[in-house]
Amino acid sequence: MKKIIKNGMIVTATDTYQADILIENEKVKAIGQGLSDVYAEVIDASGLYVFPGGIDPHTHMEMPFGGTVTKDDFETGTMAAAHGGTTTIIDFCLTEKGKTLKNALSTWHQKSKDKSVIDYGFHLQIVEANESVLEEIPVVIEEEGVTSFKVFMAYKNVLQADDETLYQTLTTAKKHGGLVMVHAENGDVIEHLTKEALRNGNTEPIYHALTRPPELEGEATGRAAKLTALADSQLYVVHVTCKEAVEQIAEARSKGFNVFGETCPQYLVLDQSYLDQPDFEGAKYVWSPPLRDKSNQEVLWNALKSGQLQTIGSDHCSFDFDGQKDLGKGDFTKIPNGGPFVEDRFSVLFSEGVKKGRISINQFVDMVSTQSAKLFGLFPRKGTIAPGADADIVLFDPNAERTISVDTHHSAVDYSALEGMKVTGEPVTVLSRGEYVVKDKEFVGKPGAGKFLKREKYNSDALQRQEETATGR
Amino acid sequence: MKKIIKNGMIVTATDTYQADILIENEKVKAIGQGLSDVYAEVIDASGLYVFPGGIDPHTHMEMPFGGTVTKDDFETGTMAAAHGGTTTIIDFCLTEKGKTLKNALSTWHQKSKDKSVIDYGFHLQIVEANESVLEEIPVVIEEEGVTSFKVFMAYKNVLQADDETLYQTLTTAKKHGGLVMVHAENGDVIEHLTKEALRNGNTEPIYHALTRPPELEGEATGRAAKLTALADSQLYVVHVTCKEAVEQIAEARSKGFNVFGETCPQYLVLDQSYLDQPDFEGAKYVWSPPLRDKSNQEVLWNALKSGQLQTIGSDHCSFDFDGQKDLGKGDFTKIPNGGPFVEDRFSVLFSEGVKKGRISINQFVDMVSTQSAKLFGLFPRKGTIAPGADADIVLFDPNAERTISVDTHHSAVDYSALEGMKVTGEPVTVLSRGEYVVKDKEFVGKPGAGKFLKREKYNSDALQRQEETATGR
Amino acid sequence: MKKIIKNGMIVTATDTYQADILIENEKVKAIGQGLSDVYAEVIDASGLYVFPGGIDPHTHMEMPFGGTVTKDDFETGTMAAAHGGTTTIIDFCLTEKGKTLKNALSTWHQKSKDKSVIDYGFHLQIVEANESVLEEIPVVIEEEGVTSFKVFMAYKNVLQADDETLYQTLTTAKKHGGLVMVHAENGDVIEHLTKEALRNGNTEPIYHALTRPPELEGEATGRAAKLTALADSQLYVVHVTCKEAVEQIAEARSKGFNVFGETCPQYLVLDQSYLDQPDFEGAKYVWSPPLRDKSNQEVLWNALKSGQLQTIGSDHCSFDFDGQKDLGKGDFTKIPNGGPFVEDRFSVLFSEGVKKGRISINQFVDMVSTQSAKLFGLFPRKGTIAPGADADIVLFDPNAERTISVDTHHSAVDYSALEGMKVTGEPVTVLSRGEYVVKDKEFVGKPGAGKFLKREKYNSDALQRQEETATGR
Amino acid sequence: MKKIIKNGMIVTATDTYQADILIENEKVKAIGQGLSDVYAEVIDASGLYVFPGGIDPHTHMEMPFGGTVTKDDFETGTMAAAHGGTTTIIDFCLTEKGKTLKNALSTWHQKSKDKSVIDYGFHLQIVEANESVLEEIPVVIEEEGVTSFKVFMAYKNVLQADDETLYQTLTTAKKHGGLVMVHAENGDVIEHLTKEALRNGNTEPIYHALTRPPELEGEATGRAAKLTALADSQLYVVHVTCKEAVEQIAEARSKGFNVFGETCPQYLVLDQSYLDQPDFEGAKYVWSPPLRDKSNQEVLWNALKSGQLQTIGSDHCSFDFDGQKDLGKGDFTKIPNGGPFVEDRFSVLFSEGVKKGRISINQFVDMVSTQSAKLFGLFPRKGTIAPGADADIVLFDPNAERTISVDTHHSAVDYSALEGMKVTGEPVTVLSRGEYVVKDKEFVGKPGAGKFLKREKYNSDALQRQEETATGR
Repeated sequence: MKKIIKNGMIVTATDTYQADILIENEKVKAIGQGLSDVYAEVIDASGLYVFPGGIDPHTHMEMPFGGTVTKDDFETGTMAAAHGGTTTIIDFCLTEKGKTLKNALSTWHQKSKDKSVIDYGFHLQIVEANESVLEEIPVVIEEEGVTSFKVFMAYKNVLQADDETLYQTLTTAKKHGGLVMVHAENGDVIEHLTKEALRNGNTEPIYHALTRPPELEGEATGRAAKLTALADSQLYVVHVTCKEAVEQIAEARSKGFNVFGETCPQYLVLDQSYLDQPDFEGAKYVWSPPLRDKSNQEVLWNALKSGQLQTIGSDHCSFDFDGQKDLGKGDFTKIPNGGPFVEDRFSVLFSEGVKKGRISINQFVDMVSTQSAKLFGLFPRKGTIAPGADADIVLFDPNAERTISVDTHHSAVDYSALEGMKVTGEPVTVLSRGEYVVKDKEFVGKPGAGKFLKREKYNSDALQRQEETATGR
Repeated sequence: MKKIIKNGMIVTATDTYQADILIENEKVKAIGQGLSDVYAEVIDASGLYVFPGGIDPHTHMEMPFGGTVTKDDFETGTMAAAHGGTTTIIDFCLTEKGKTLKNALSTWHQKSKDKSVIDYGFHLQIVEANESVLEEIPVVIEEEGVTSFKVFMAYKNVLQADDETLYQTLTTAKKHGGLVMVHAENGDVIEHLTKEALRNGNTEPIYHALTRPPELEGEATGRAAKLTALADSQLYVVHVTCKEAVEQIAEARSKGFNVFGETCPQYLVLDQSYLDQPDFEGAKYVWSPPLRDKSNQEVLWNALKSGQLQTIGSDHCSFDFDGQKDLGKGDFTKIPNGGPFVEDRFSVLFSEGVKKGRISINQFVDMVSTQSAKLFGLFPRKGTIAPGADADIVLFDPNAERTISVDTHHSAVDYSALEGMKVTGEPVTVLSRGEYVVKDKEFVGKPGAGKFLKREKYNSDALQRQEETATGR
Repeated sequence: MKKIIKNGMIVTATDTYQADILIENEKVKAIGQGLSDVYAEVIDASGLYVFPGGIDPHTHMEMPFGGTVTKDDFETGTMAAAHGGTTTIIDFCLTEKGKTLKNALSTWHQKSKDKSVIDYGFHLQIVEANESVLEEIPVVIEEEGVTSFKVFMAYKNVLQADDETLYQTLTTAKKHGGLVMVHAENGDVIEHLTKEALRNGNTEPIYHALTRPPELEGEATGRAAKLTALADSQLYVVHVTCKEAVEQIAEARSKGFNVFGETCPQYLVLDQSYLDQPDFEGAKYVWSPPLRDKSNQEVLWNALKSGQLQTIGSDHCSFDFDGQKDLGKGDFTKIPNGGPFVEDRFSVLFSEGVKKGRISINQFVDMVSTQSAKLFGLFPRKGTIAPGADADIVLFDPNAERTISVDTHHSAVDYSALEGMKVTGEPVTVLSRGEYVVKDKEFVGKPGAGKFLKREKYNSDALQRQEETATGR
Repeated sequence: MKKIIKNGMIVTATDTYQADILIENEKVKAIGQGLSDVYAEVIDASGLYVFPGGIDPHTHMEMPFGGTVTKDDFETGTMAAAHGGTTTIIDFCLTEKGKTLKNALSTWHQKSKDKSVIDYGFHLQIVEANESVLEEIPVVIEEEGVTSFKVFMAYKNVLQADDETLYQTLTTAKKHGGLVMVHAENGDVIEHLTKEALRNGNTEPIYHALTRPPELEGEATGRAAKLTALADSQLYVVHVTCKEAVEQIAEARSKGFNVFGETCPQYLVLDQSYLDQPDFEGAKYVWSPPLRDKSNQEVLWNALKSGQLQTIGSDHCSFDFDGQKDLGKGDFTKIPNGGPFVEDRFSVLFSEGVKKGRISINQFVDMVSTQSAKLFGLFPRKGTIAPGADADIVLFDPNAERTISVDTHHSAVDYSALEGMKVTGEPVTVLSRGEYVVKDKEFVGKPGAGKFLKREKYNSDALQRQEETATGR
């Protein structure tokens, strides 16, 4: 059924204007003043912002880690996402040495099938760049629509790849239109610091942060950026947390290299002191890279404002405090790494960013949606409100005030890392391809309604495609 | 009369999509697929890009300089602009010590009245920040809609202001919502180098460049940026030409300061060697800052790509080679400074930038239109294609090939500084507030049709205004 | 009479070794183990360091400022210097517009004649680079042995010169072998901030610091360094106080330019909070540039350690608290600028630098003596202990502990800005050209014993001279 | 027998002065004007410089590499060194996984015993930081006087250590007073580039350079510097060749970290084009890191001048062109890496550096001798001319002109990489601990005369030791 969203303030990465939106066949059909259609359901958006649905480029649903599995699977996780204004997630598909990439994808398809309430795609981990893997990369790009590849520079002896693998992934991605993503921390040195901490009897959660100092993130970020420059390839640095890393990204960008950076809500509002709490409470804040000294928050905001960082991912990776996080009591290295943030991207960034004048509302949309669409081959299908785009739309009340809490969130996890934080601005109604997922803050979607997204190849100019269309006629 | 632009590829600073545009009462009314209106004239844009009209933030029409006056006045100058895809110019209004700001504005209104074929606004020079000038600044902001102020750090004893004036202009602008612009070259040292050159008998045009080395632009740019940071104000550096200046802007931006930069087509495609030609030919390329060593071109492109520079201005300032430029035969300091570029912004940036993969087509629109609208208080009235915006629209043929030449340009000046340059992409039809100015490459506008634009105050977030509207219901 | 200093630990900018020194005819004659001479007086230096006499490159004796004159003249000032281990000062000779340079030098010769107890030279201020001044510069270099020239970028309408003057001084110095010195603060903006502070009723001493923020020192330092680079000349930045300035010097040096920097003891151990004391006490700490935030102290130490700064000057400029500093009660701009430090260079740098492991003892000697000798044309006559050098020698007890106080200092001024500071290490005996000035901590010198030093030209390699001698035979 | 060197111009890292030197019992006894001793042999040094003997901190004598062994052993190699003004070498002792450090040292003692004509010490490679190695490090420091440790970041699967080993070496060295040295190139990526080149049939010598681009040296240098900062340890980067690496060292130093850098004569005067010659001639110039683009030469000179690099090593590692280098015909990876430079350090640096005004003559001494003595625990025994120091002395004719050639050099190798280069300045006579090794350019030394040097621990302030002596009485 057709829908018309009336009287809202439409906001894209560039524009802010009052107009109506006509939706038909899952897509935006027209935008204009005083639109009407007798067959359409009218949604009144007076006093609301109308945003393109959020794209979360960084989630881990039903992910195994250290002998346990994240609490949120593709069902509860995407429900939480939808309540938070997100209509697309791109989840990380882990691989194993000795198995094919397709094998890994097949596992992830199994996890998500019939579960996701919103659309989704996969990034694919590369742990070893042997001949068969390098040959399979173009195949998954062409056939599977999986066009982004993650290399871990940390988690030695588990997920970590060496620089030869990173470099080969960069050159292969360059050749076939992929985008390489890195978890940038120097895993070798972390390995040593971790062993040393345990040897010295330092087992509390705070040692998770102290054994992963920001210098090691800066080092690895710079290394990845320099290899990218050498390969003339493209790089996306996930979860950037600190000055040391931002500087490396900024330097590469200033020389014209295609290096991009993501940060996460948690790094903008929490800091290292959260890990240093009694009664194992700090374990709730254990993820990698760790929370940093508070001074880094301003650095991250400035980097977002000036365009040195492009996107906001949630790095949603939820483990219960009781029964999962407590695996690490007496040994911080056994605390499952991760925190639940998929539901709070919009609220945190809007409340702390837009409301406090740190970023503009168009930059907000750019960071939570448009840039990810462009970088990861989903644009212009996702990431904007324009005729022809999927009708993934969020009606957002900029004045609603709420307090983030485990009592009200939609994730399956048993705590909120932002418990008690007051935020202004909240998604009210969320459409995925024209259908309600959340209506007046109530979940009305259904598991399996979300589709797997075959994504386009990376393009240093994400829109050269359009140009070719325009000029190719 | 209503118009519908059908089948074009609409491009904004963010989006690229195929849809139709309905225009009514000077404004965009609706955008959608398959729009129709029996009362509307249909314009077929098949195979064409549909851009928001260009905004040239840097022109000098009918400007006096060294005893002569630029060849283009507001009539011929805006005709040339329109042919080049520009539907708004912001011209520099010069002031004199001892006279009021309103007096200067009145002179500029006289020059432009009944002449301009497109809409226009004024920047206002501040040469001396005495008490009466500082008191008049908020008045011209509020009453005249003149919200940007230019300070010259060069042209000693003529236009140059001292740092005390610059700093006071910055603090006053900060307080009242103005944006400060600087011509950043160290005029003191240039004065010395110039006198020395003449003393040594070095009178040829090339000495114009040699006496204004890039170090002096870098120095002044850094100085202005640092004073802006100290004043926590906002700065727009006009005509950035070199690595030394780009680095200073990038550094200020990375610290979160509101420092912006403009470059011009000429600095992207010409270089210092053009001044070093026989038969006084070099005089055609004399303007300030001068053309630089070719290596700076890549620096400027990278700065545009990575967002360290935001806009493209033309610095159109046209003097005939015969009868004007030749005032400086035998003494390069007497060559009127300036060149004619208002007509070539789109062609140069599209051909060298978009076509060669240096920037995306959305960045192109951002640089030639949207960013200037946002920075100079014209957004969302100008600078985008969205319901409610002025119907300033350019139909652009991305495949048209032409050779830039004095024989075909529309400026009144007797030479082209880009003579013989082959470019791909050309404006075909140009609408200003829904009316044709150029139709199928023919001029059909009329002098006086352009209106003076009272501009909004500068806002570090150009769109906080919209938020206030949205939340103020 | 001959002297032998026995059993001391001789320290130069490079070496540290135990040996005896034979002094004859004002000079070092030989250095060796077990030296003896029946005609020589033996001075036992067991347990003491034997340093080359200190060179203070930055003093203001009997200097007029704001209607008053510094308390220390060349007699009391050099007595204090000698007690502090300094055997040479280079004082700043101020000039006036419209008068000749020689006229100014003559005034300064008058002040110092028959007064100084140690050797001395003059730097010469350049306030206006008109033709007659530019012609006189080579004359004072050749005839007067005055080879360094100071330009003030601050003190608008009083001492401040414009950039044209600075640049011309740089090119003239380059041509004739002079070294240009700058007081680097942006006087224009300070002028505005100062007026504004007074207008707002902010008259307390702390506003001296608040109206001269470090950004303005950084700006001016960068400007001077860039003009030096352009002129391919040589620059010495006096009294560097902050990160912003250090970074500019480091950048210029890394590109190979001849830019040098001095800091002062006060900036290494005091901070801005000293100006913010009740009862006008802050006035004791009013000088320019002002004391800075404490975080700058580590920056300065690192810059000294890594060689980005070269020398330690005292900027000795003493005004009584009672009767002079209090001219500024109720108006901080009327507080005479300056503080008394000539006596404490060795103690502060040794105690805080060498003893705390921040710099080596050879670096200590380099900074308090050798570098100034090399930069200002006094080497190898001064600045080292080697056969042939003047026997300016300090016996220094590294273990002596004392508390700095007005009660014990030798300056004529009525307070100490370091009152109560405990230091380790103290000069015991000081020789000037082989004669005692201080013996066992008692003054035994005599006014007029110090000679005016005609200094050599600046040489980018201070010792090319020696090479020419060696190879010219 | 005693000796007196008369009438020379003595030059140290600080001083330049004319005086005589009395030598007795292997050491400098006294320095003074007009020294005489009836029992002493008089050496006339009129017109000559008198330098402290050179210290070459980077040699490879009798070193195995890829199945062959360097042509020069400790006998021919040190003879060549002595002719070049060098009186001490520190050679690299290689280790093997699974064997003890003492085992490796024993092998190196065997190679050098009864062969070296000058004094020598060893650096020790660390390839794997397992428990037994980490425990042995303090033992070799204390018992063997081996206080510097080399980690290779390149030569994957051969010499390369991982970052965990590097980091542990840094912390262990910090604790026990060692200095860590790195060969800084990213071996992982080089491995890939090398395989790829061979796969593509690119087998000529030039591909040695093309598969080891400067970006990889910059990356590894930055990585090592950052790990050093984190460990608060000390680092010496051997053979720095390029801008990318210099910048990383400079940045670490500016923050106060103990990071030092060495470059080599070859990088100052040769460039990458030398590898690109026909007839396999390029193989003569194959070593790692490779020769770079010529623009890096100026960067290196500026870094030496401004103190960002401290020392000049030769990286002497000599392989015959016939019979050794030609192992790599048809496969550049099989060309033994290395070149012969131990004899030319003084000549190249004096001729190109001092004579051309790039560095001062004191800086020359500092770089070829003093700094290495201080960093590697040999000062003040070596590295200066002062009473008490070893009488390692070079008489150097600054005006002698010669052409470097295989025909006249003293190394055993069959080519010179500097063949035909004209230099000014040549060692004439060389003393080692007071005995002639070279006299009037003739070799008069004898194998086995050189002693193994047990070196002192690293001290961030190399001379704190002396202070303790002085104050400990």
